[in-house]
Amino acid sequence: MALKSFIEVQPDSHFSIQNLPYGVFKTAPDSVQRPCVAIGEYLLNLAEIAAAGLFDGSLLKDSDCFDQPNLNKFLSLGRPAWKEARATLQKLLSSTEPALRDNEALRSRSLIQLRKVAMVVPVAIQDYTDFFSSMHLPDNSRAASCESPNKILPNRFHLPIAYHGRASSIVISGTDIVRPRGQSAPIVNSPPHFGPSAKMDFELEMAAVVGTGNELGKPVDIHKAEDHIFGLVLMNDWSARDIQGWESVPLGPFLGKSFGTTISPWIVTLEALEPFKCDSPIQDPPPLPYLAEKTSQNYDISMEVLLRPVGQQDTQVLTRTNSKHLYWTLPQLFAHHTINGCNLQPGDLLGTGILSGPV
Amino acid sequence: MALKSFIEVQPDSHFSIQNLPYGVFKTAPDSVQRPCVAIGEYLLNLAEIAAAGLFDGSLLKDSDCFDQPNLNKFLSLGRPAWKEARATLQKLLSSTEPALRDNEALRSRSLIQLRKVAMVVPVAIQDYTDFFSSMHLPDNSRAASCESPNKILPNRFHLPIAYHGRASSIVISGTDIVRPRGQSAPIVNSPPHFGPSAKMDFELEMAAVVGTGNELGKPVDIHKAEDHIFGLVLMNDWSARDIQGWESVPLGPFLGKSFGTTISPWIVTLEALEPFKCDSPIQDPPPLPYLAEKTSQNYDISMEVLLRPVGQQDTQVLTRTNSKHLYWTLPQLFAHHTINGCNLQPGDLLGTGILSGPV
Repeated sequence: MALKSFIEVQPDSHFSIQNLPYGVFKTAPDSVQRPCVAIGEYLLNLAEIAAAGLFDGSLLKDSDCFDQPNLNKFLSLGRPAWKEARATLQKLLSSTEPALRDNEALRSRSLIQLRKVAMVVPVAIQDYTDFFSSMHLPDNSRAASCESPNKILPNRFHLPIAYHGRASSIVISGTDIVRPRGQSAPIVNSPPHFGPSAKMDFELEMAAVVGTGNELGKPVDIHKAEDHIFGLVLMNDWSARDIQGWESVPLGPFLGKSFGTTISPWIVTLEALEPFKCDSPIQDPPPLPYLAEKTSQNYDISMEVLLRPVGQQDTQVLTRTNSKHLYWTLPQLFAHHTINGCNLQPGDLLGTGILSGPV
Repeated sequence: MALKSFIEVQPDSHFSIQNLPYGVFKTAPDSVQRPCVAIGEYLLNLAEIAAAGLFDGSLLKDSDCFDQPNLNKFLSLGRPAWKEARATLQKLLSSTEPALRDNEALRSRSLIQLRKVAMVVPVAIQDYTDFFSSMHLPDNSRAASCESPNKILPNRFHLPIAYHGRASSIVISGTDIVRPRGQSAPIVNSPPHFGPSAKMDFELEMAAVVGTGNELGKPVDIHKAEDHIFGLVLMNDWSARDIQGWESVPLGPFLGKSFGTTISPWIVTLEALEPFKCDSPIQDPPPLPYLAEKTSQNYDISMEVLLRPVGQQDTQVLTRTNSKHLYWTLPQLFAHHTINGCNLQPGDLLGTGILSGPV
């Protein structure tokens, strides 16, 4: 019989006891930020659970990792601590366990309705990288990156192409994005056009949240890379295609992207995603040895983007896709990023790039 | 008569009382890090000066900005506080002021020989951006960025092209750099080459250290931009040209740069550089209004790079240049970076790109 929580979870909720995604909340604009997990229509304040001594496993018992304004310290403890936390929380929230269920004072301190809090960016993001991991690029992105059906980039099937993104302008879902102003390509013999972007676009991506990093100069082996990844967020890599198209030869995207990048408040752990693993596409040509995995797997996650224009009631579907089509896997992104010795750190984001698939 | 310190400063020293560059030091691997300025062969520990109550101006009197492991808090206080600190320190170190000169206990607590400490990266760098600000690109860099004498990039005279760099791998001068491994372009119909980079290169740059930032969505006016910049460091943007050349179309440099970037331990303030201001090159075509300055100025600073191969006594000069040739000025870099609303933060670095000039 499936594990069930004493907290009611609607059948269409994303926040079952099998998921337990991590976030960081505050109850008022100036209040402290504390880590939590989502369960049904509630969050569970992990600082209260820790203060009550309920993280009693060997790795978390004496840790102050939840008495923090972000998840970075918890992430830095590594996969064994993440597994211990998940086991503790699934037990604590289950319908058969009395420790929290029957402790009314603790329940009222630690369980808060989600609609009563504000979620914040859950990690301090030191560096953010965005990759090209899909092989099926939509036309708008392809045009902005100089690729055409007649000119396939020669490196794309040998490495996950990437650029460093801007970490400071990453915001939590729901934050207003100000339409950027900037230059776009001139009509021949005129100065460049300047004004608010007329080609605002979205990019539906996932991003891996780095859990444990590596030392500068020490690459991470492809077969150990997955253990460094804590979980996944959704990401919208807002893009001003007119600004991007004019500025980005030869150094890549800059102001066309750096005005704002939106992530979801919840980090879904790789443990929770385990049941959704599936084979990834066959890679041909075969990757170089440092990118070659014994088994290459993706996650089968359906996603869609809806748009509701201001003043309208109805939404329109802009895209539907699935992360199972990603050509490069998460461990490959991690191994490639570190092969030159570059150091990743807890809280770093690795975006997959646009999630697209066959038409 | 020129201001003179009671501390002896050799005529060829860079650390006169007119300079007073800021850094952060520690006296042992595990000891605390504290801000300081350099004077002759000594540093002055600013935490001790603050503890002695000698920062008695209105802006710094009650501040704990020097009781910190980096300069970020001091930087965030803004130009009036930076000017106040400089005035206080120049007075305190002058030959005519007894407060420090005649207080032997304080002198022994606060003045430490530079050869007895380790300098560390002086700011917590959240984001690092590198620009193309010179118009005279050396051939090796030009080849790696797809430009040729017959194909001048059309955007270069309209905006300072830039990319986001990797902040985590910025290290202090003297730190060993591990030669990166990676892919480089295949010979036709072969897989890409893989191995240690065979085309390691240096780039002599300066980088502006951002003092005060701006709010997301709020561009900074070109005429206010200079006030946001605290000072300058030297930077070596180590580059693996073979890795960079293969990976960087279309998203720009990534692993060819992210294995390590070296900065100088000392930040020279814009106040100290004021006497070295000079006219910058005439910009033709004229820049768009958001980049147009009433007066465009650079700093006249001569620089050279020397190489001493392992096991040899003699050094060779690799390059000599001067920052007065920069086409885009520091305020233009700042104004361009924020025109789309991108938020800069105290401690961010803005690299000038290769400093080059006419042959």
